[in-house]
Amino acid sequence: MGNCTTIIYDHRPELKKPILIEGLPGVGNVGKIAADFISQGVKAEKFATVYSDSFPPQVMLDQDCVIHMACNELYHANVNGKDIIFLLGNYQGSTPEGQYLICEDLMNDVFLKMDVSKIITLGGFGTGQMVQEPAVLGAVSDITMKLELEEHGVVFRPGEPGGGIVGASALFIGFGKMYNIPSVCLMGETSGYFVDHKSSMALVKVLESILGIDLDKSELEQKCQQIDDLTAKMKEMENDQPKGRDLGYIG
Amino acid sequence: MGNCTTIIYDHRPELKKPILIEGLPGVGNVGKIAADFISQGVKAEKFATVYSDSFPPQVMLDQDCVIHMACNELYHANVNGKDIIFLLGNYQGSTPEGQYLICEDLMNDVFLKMDVSKIITLGGFGTGQMVQEPAVLGAVSDITMKLELEEHGVVFRPGEPGGGIVGASALFIGFGKMYNIPSVCLMGETSGYFVDHKSSMALVKVLESILGIDLDKSELEQKCQQIDDLTAKMKEMENDQPKGRDLGYIG
Amino acid sequence: MGNCTTIIYDHRPELKKPILIEGLPGVGNVGKIAADFISQGVKAEKFATVYSDSFPPQVMLDQDCVIHMACNELYHANVNGKDIIFLLGNYQGSTPEGQYLICEDLMNDVFLKMDVSKIITLGGFGTGQMVQEPAVLGAVSDITMKLELEEHGVVFRPGEPGGGIVGASALFIGFGKMYNIPSVCLMGETSGYFVDHKSSMALVKVLESILGIDLDKSELEQKCQQIDDLTAKMKEMENDQPKGRDLGYIG
Amino acid sequence: MGNCTTIIYDHRPELKKPILIEGLPGVGNVGKIAADFISQGVKAEKFATVYSDSFPPQVMLDQDCVIHMACNELYHANVNGKDIIFLLGNYQGSTPEGQYLICEDLMNDVFLKMDVSKIITLGGFGTGQMVQEPAVLGAVSDITMKLELEEHGVVFRPGEPGGGIVGASALFIGFGKMYNIPSVCLMGETSGYFVDHKSSMALVKVLESILGIDLDKSELEQKCQQIDDLTAKMKEMENDQPKGRDLGYIG
Repeated sequence: MGNCTTIIYDHRPELKKPILIEGLPGVGNVGKIAADFISQGVKAEKFATVYSDSFPPQVMLDQDCVIHMACNELYHANVNGKDIIFLLGNYQGSTPEGQYLICEDLMNDVFLKMDVSKIITLGGFGTGQMVQEPAVLGAVSDITMKLELEEHGVVFRPGEPGGGIVGASALFIGFGKMYNIPSVCLMGETSGYFVDHKSSMALVKVLESILGIDLDKSELEQKCQQIDDLTAKMKEMENDQPKGRDLGYIG
Repeated sequence: MGNCTTIIYDHRPELKKPILIEGLPGVGNVGKIAADFISQGVKAEKFATVYSDSFPPQVMLDQDCVIHMACNELYHANVNGKDIIFLLGNYQGSTPEGQYLICEDLMNDVFLKMDVSKIITLGGFGTGQMVQEPAVLGAVSDITMKLELEEHGVVFRPGEPGGGIVGASALFIGFGKMYNIPSVCLMGETSGYFVDHKSSMALVKVLESILGIDLDKSELEQKCQQIDDLTAKMKEMENDQPKGRDLGYIG
Repeated sequence: MGNCTTIIYDHRPELKKPILIEGLPGVGNVGKIAADFISQGVKAEKFATVYSDSFPPQVMLDQDCVIHMACNELYHANVNGKDIIFLLGNYQGSTPEGQYLICEDLMNDVFLKMDVSKIITLGGFGTGQMVQEPAVLGAVSDITMKLELEEHGVVFRPGEPGGGIVGASALFIGFGKMYNIPSVCLMGETSGYFVDHKSSMALVKVLESILGIDLDKSELEQKCQQIDDLTAKMKEMENDQPKGRDLGYIG
Repeated sequence: MGNCTTIIYDHRPELKKPILIEGLPGVGNVGKIAADFISQGVKAEKFATVYSDSFPPQVMLDQDCVIHMACNELYHANVNGKDIIFLLGNYQGSTPEGQYLICEDLMNDVFLKMDVSKIITLGGFGTGQMVQEPAVLGAVSDITMKLELEEHGVVFRPGEPGGGIVGASALFIGFGKMYNIPSVCLMGETSGYFVDHKSSMALVKVLESILGIDLDKSELEQKCQQIDDLTAKMKEMENDQPKGRDLGYIG
């Protein structure tokens, strides 16, 4: 019967004008790692599974050889009296159109009905270069949102990212704008060459500030250290290489 | 729920048998530039935004880092007592089928209901060669339209363009023919190698003649001058190259 | 609104258990040429146009610069008291799925409602080699049909074509079999390297025998002569080339 | 009318909480061969044909030149008082999304309505290396199923296959898990380089044990012998090749 998204509820939480936080796979997996970290930190509870014929026709196996179908998941938590929904998972739609359809269905069938009051989508901003201190860039649905976000450490670089934003992170803030819901995409700077926990850490700190929480980040800190080591090593290797050919013709 | 086009109205203008002018991206962006220029010249007002899951799942940012979702826009104006609708934007459908679906939805849900009396689609006719004085070629839904268009400067070259016309410019005149609405595609000649304001200028002049208006074209004129400079430079470079090898074996 | 086929009727002929003859573009255009020729020969009258968003988003121009949208057409004729419908045109669906959808819609919305009693689809059987006397191969929905078709000159080669049949010619006989309508695909042998009127002529003769008619084929005969000349020339060129290298090392 | 699956019933068997066994084309055709063999061995009877616009638009010919449209077929049998349905055929959907749609329709319109009590999907596990004694790997919807399956000879390797499972074999166990139907995918180890009857034999023996049957496997045994011969030959050829270059510089 054509394209469809199936949402299976474990339970239906009562939510009051919740904030939506989206973190799905993307550049450096920056957004996914940050969203997973925050949702675990605030002890968010799963309440629904999202299946779609725009996900690949695939199951994955865990260590017990128990299968898990391609899906996204919805979690909720109450943080400082404020309801939050998380959209998490390992998949985005397998085609541009499929991606559009899933997000459209989630927006219409879930988020609009839950009267979502704010949308925060998380992603990476790939620079193609090693980044020492990743900034967190913002893109907003409404210019009035910028001042408050800057106070939480978000940076706005005119017109950046120049190539725009794609995927679920783009669509939900786009839909947010369509329906007058204040929406922002937060993007951690990253080389984009590897899974970048350090960029995710920067995102996490901004989100903590926005939500008014302070989570135990020691485990994430360790992974950031690994990124620093990797960056230092790559820099070293770069310096070891002779620059140009000016040493080659002496003899 | 599968492919769909969403049209969000700012307001619903009262229109009497309007003329539709379409100018979306294409060869040399000739049609888009001309449509944007005319719509601004006649102070057309935006009345609706067109979203579609056949557009790419993408948002673009302006200099304020405010997002803009992939969309097309509808404008209207009254010129010399005649209502005009403009279909403008930066996107066409991301697949041939998607392109078909968007145009089909716009035709059925908007233009037929507005009782459109005439359809003018704008495009470029890529010649693959530098063009000194771009002509404006026409393709019509009905042979009786030719004489009047020729009086406005439109040229009809038998069977040209030989490869037909594709995209929104093709579909709307095709739908026009299906529903007996006089429809024409006007195509500015262009090399197709760059954004060609000079070809757009030729289109603009024909449209001014058709609509009975005379706009301030000084800004567009400047950009045409740049095209002329570019063309002259390329010609020069061509002349500087030795022709053949007949000079090479003298000694 | 997703995939759809639009059928616009010029008039609705009264037909009694008509025979469907399909001839759309394909290998060597053998089927299309034969179907066009027969339909003109029996003075078939157009009664409907078939549009589909699975056709390319394109219009073609005639010598008057009048546009023609991508479409198929339905014609009808009465031959020796027997009603015949022709499905003709310059397009097949632009994707495998699109092809399926158009044929499915035509079958359900037109042909089944008209109570089609027999289906004949026409195509080419590409051999990859020059063919002197093209045979007409058959593929049937029911084994009992073979004897009669052999009397009309159709050849059945066990299992041939080994790669099966694709496109509209395949789908309509497949649907025919699903609905117990005697269905046959007739395929003219052809090299497949060029538009092959000679192969079409072979198809035409079989169809004349089936329908009990004898059309003026002098014009088609001329085009066959051109094919013969081309074949002879290619054979000559082949013979002029030295075979192997055995003559090369004499001196 | 968009994507659709058409199921044509020859008859509607009365079934009591049947087991579904799926065996469609895939790696080494291991699953298809095993499913075809078992269904013939238990004299399963065809009761429905499955057509879909996500199958290729194609017909194949048998030796009588009678056409057969791209389809899947449903068979049923009663084995030791237990109803079994087989999903068999030569095709899977021609795109990932098409594959999803067909399986979704079959699940919703056929298998859930028949109150399927267990799902067994069959496939190959491609190792890229010659396999002497192919194991049968399992992937389950529920961890409690493992012990019983191990007693029938199924092997569970933690996390294997690491790349997950794709296609109909994946989707039906995924849907099974969604609807709390105990579901397992059984995968015969295979090099994946050829049609592997020996791997299918391993699958067949596990299935015989599960179903409590003992079929005449002499014909399948012969084909396994051919695989053994092929494997031996390839090993021989490998051994004949000099290892490394250490013998090359003696002289």
